[in-house]
Amino acid sequence: MKMNENIKIINGGICVIHDVKAGGIREGKHGISIISFPKSMAVGVFTTNRVMAAPVKHTKSILENNNISAIVANSGNANCFTGSQGEEDCKNIVETVSNKLKIDKNEIAIASTGVIGRKMPMNIINKLIEDVKLKNSDKASNNSAKAIMTTDTVPKEYSIEITLNNGEKVRIGGICKGSGMIAPNMATLLCFITTNAKIGDKRLLKQLLKDVVDKSFNMVVVDGDESTNDEVILVSTGKVDVSDDEALDPNFQEGLEYLCIQLAKMMASDGEGATKFLEVVVNGAKRYDDAKTIVKSVASSYLVKTAVFGGDPNWGRIVTAIGYSGVDFNPNNISISISNDEQKVDLVRNSEILGFEGTDNLKQAEKIMKHQDIKIFIDLHLGNETANAFGCDLTYDYVRINAEYTT
Amino acid sequence: MKMNENIKIINGGICVIHDVKAGGIREGKHGISIISFPKSMAVGVFTTNRVMAAPVKHTKSILENNNISAIVANSGNANCFTGSQGEEDCKNIVETVSNKLKIDKNEIAIASTGVIGRKMPMNIINKLIEDVKLKNSDKASNNSAKAIMTTDTVPKEYSIEITLNNGEKVRIGGICKGSGMIAPNMATLLCFITTNAKIGDKRLLKQLLKDVVDKSFNMVVVDGDESTNDEVILVSTGKVDVSDDEALDPNFQEGLEYLCIQLAKMMASDGEGATKFLEVVVNGAKRYDDAKTIVKSVASSYLVKTAVFGGDPNWGRIVTAIGYSGVDFNPNNISISISNDEQKVDLVRNSEILGFEGTDNLKQAEKIMKHQDIKIFIDLHLGNETANAFGCDLTYDYVRINAEYTT
Repeated sequence: MKMNENIKIINGGICVIHDVKAGGIREGKHGISIISFPKSMAVGVFTTNRVMAAPVKHTKSILENNNISAIVANSGNANCFTGSQGEEDCKNIVETVSNKLKIDKNEIAIASTGVIGRKMPMNIINKLIEDVKLKNSDKASNNSAKAIMTTDTVPKEYSIEITLNNGEKVRIGGICKGSGMIAPNMATLLCFITTNAKIGDKRLLKQLLKDVVDKSFNMVVVDGDESTNDEVILVSTGKVDVSDDEALDPNFQEGLEYLCIQLAKMMASDGEGATKFLEVVVNGAKRYDDAKTIVKSVASSYLVKTAVFGGDPNWGRIVTAIGYSGVDFNPNNISISISNDEQKVDLVRNSEILGFEGTDNLKQAEKIMKHQDIKIFIDLHLGNETANAFGCDLTYDYVRINAEYTT
Repeated sequence: MKMNENIKIINGGICVIHDVKAGGIREGKHGISIISFPKSMAVGVFTTNRVMAAPVKHTKSILENNNISAIVANSGNANCFTGSQGEEDCKNIVETVSNKLKIDKNEIAIASTGVIGRKMPMNIINKLIEDVKLKNSDKASNNSAKAIMTTDTVPKEYSIEITLNNGEKVRIGGICKGSGMIAPNMATLLCFITTNAKIGDKRLLKQLLKDVVDKSFNMVVVDGDESTNDEVILVSTGKVDVSDDEALDPNFQEGLEYLCIQLAKMMASDGEGATKFLEVVVNGAKRYDDAKTIVKSVASSYLVKTAVFGGDPNWGRIVTAIGYSGVDFNPNNISISISNDEQKVDLVRNSEILGFEGTDNLKQAEKIMKHQDIKIFIDLHLGNETANAFGCDLTYDYVRINAEYTT
C-alpha cells in the first residue's frame, strides 16, 4: 500500500485525541483497561461466532441505542459461556465503572478476552477498576494497551494525523490486542479506536468501519480459530468535520484503513509463537472475492506456514493451497514470486517453473526466506482485482503456548 | 461404529484376493509399488484440487474408459505442476510397466506422491519398476504398502472377509498412505483396494466407493491442506456376486465402509508428528451436513489440536470451534463429553457447565486426556443425525517435519 502523503504517523495511541483519557492496570493474568471521553457517537464490529460472550451482546445493544462515554475491557477471562451469571457479572462491572466515572451505565461499552467458561473473578476485577487511574498521555494509552494483552508479547498501538483536502487536520488513534484465535473474521481481537473526526451519519460511520475491518483485521490469519469475544469499537468525538460538500474526505477514509492495516500487521507479527511476518498478495484476479479467498487459503495453510518457519521457498505448497481454495483459475498461467523489502524473485512465471532445485532463483529465494518479513506474490493473470492477507509462521512455540495455556 | 458380526478381520492386505499380486521396493526417498490382477472393473475417487497432478489426470481417463490389470504408484515425487514433461514421464512409466507385465498400456492406472514441481527422476523410477518382484503373499502386500510411504511412519493395510446373507464369503483388502496434507476431501492420500466381489454395474460401484470415501477418508483431518495427488482406487475382480435379487448385499457395503474407516483411522493416528488419535462425534444434529461441518471444524481447530497434545480438557475451545463452524445450533442447549475406551465424563450438559476448574469432572477429564485415543462427543439436542471425524493432535514434531521436509 502506497502511503498517502497527507497521513502522518504521530505518537500517543488513543490519547492523540486530547479529550480522551485512558488507563490500564494488571494483577497477574487479569487486566483492566478503561477509556473515557465526552459523550460520543460510537460504532462497532463484532464476532460472527454463534457463541457470543456476554460483554459482546451487551455492547452491541448499547452501541445501537446510545452514544457512549467510556469503554471498559478486562483480560484473563472471556466471560463467555457463563450463562446468566455472566450477564450479571457484566452488569456489575458496568455499574462499578458507572460509579467510578459518574456516568450513566447506558453510556458504557464493555469487552472481555481470556479463558472461556470460567466464572469472572469479580473481586479482583472490581478492585482493579477502582485502582485504574485515567489520564490523557502517551503512557496512559500504552498502559491501556498493555492491560488488554493475553498471550500478546507486545502492546499494540498506532496513531496518525491526517491533513484533509480543506487543509484541516484530524487525528485517529488505536490500541488493540490479539495474537491467537486470529482468523478470517476477526478472532480474539479487541480494538478500540478514537478519532476527533465528525461524521454526522451513524450508519455511514458504521459502514466505514465495517469496510475497513474487512480489509485489515479480517485479513489476518494466525490459526483460523475465530473467537467468541471480538470487538472493534470506533469512537468519534466529533470535533473536526471530515465531510466536504456532504462527501467524506477520502484522506480520512484512507487514514482509517491505513491505521487498521498497521494494527492488523502488528497482530500478525505477534501471532502466537511467530518468528516471521508473512504477507500474501494476489494480483490479477477476476473478482475481489477470488483474490481474498486465495490469499486467506495460502496464508492459513499449515504447510505454507511451516515452510516459512523452516525458511523453505516451497512454492509447491503455495500452488497446492491456491488449488484447494475452491477458486476457479487457470493452472496453466499463474505466477508466484517471493520478496522481502529489498529483493523479489520469480519462482513460477506464467506457469513456467523458474525455481527448480539447483537454480539461481531458488537459491536467491532461500536467502529471502531467511528474512523476518516475507511477501508471497501470486498473479492469476485473469483480471485487475487484488487482495492482501497478513499472517505468520507456524512454530514450535505456537504449539508450546497453546498446549500449555488454557484459553 | 458397532461391528457387523458378518465381518471378520483377516491378514493379507490387498493379497487376500488370491489372483492379486503385489510388490514394492525403495531406493532412498523414492519408492515403487505395483499391483497386478486379471483384467478387472475398477473405479476411483480423486482429488478435487484445481491443480491436479499428471498421474491423476491420466488415471481418471483410464478408469473411465477401460478395465485395468495393474496399478503403479511412486513415492518421493508427486509429478505435479511439471507441465508436458510430467505427462511424458507419466506415459513413460506406464510403458515400462506395460513391457514388464506384458499388458496393454491402457490397462494401467498410475499414482504419485511426494514433492511438487520437481522433475521425475526417471532413471531411478524405471530401474525400480524393473526390480520390483510381484507375488501373492502377506509380505508382498506389506512391501507394496511400504513403498508408497512418504512421511508415514508405518505402512497401512487392512483386510476383511465378509459373510453375505446367502452364506457366501467375499473379501476386501486395502493399502494406503497419507499422514500430512490430510484434510477434508482426501488430501495426500493414496489408497488401493481389492475385492473379489462382483458388482455388475460400474456406476453403482463408483457411487458405492464415493459414499464410503465420504464417510471415511474425507472425514480425516490432519492439517487441512488438500493435496494435488489423491487417488482411491477400488478394483473388483468379480468372482463373488454380492447382489441378491438385484439388490446389493448390505454386509458388503458395511464391510467396505468398515475397512475404509479403519484405514482412515490409521492415517489420522499416523498424522505427521501425532502423539494422539482424536475422534470427534456429533450427535443430535438436525441435518447430516451440520453434523459433518461441526466435527470437521472441531477436529481441525489448531486450538483443540494443541489442547489435545497438552492433555488439557479445554472444552471452551471446543465450544468456540462449534460456534464458528457456521452451523445454526442452540448455544443454550449443547452437551460436551470426553472419553477414552474405558470412561466417559460430561463437561457440559444441556449447556450447564460441569467441568469448571476444581470440579471432579474436570479432574477426571484431565486423566482421560492422558490416554492416546481420545473421543470428543458433542450433542446438539436438535435431531437424530450424527457424524464422526478422525484427527490427531498438533505437536512440535508436526512443525519439525514440515519445516524441514520439502513436500
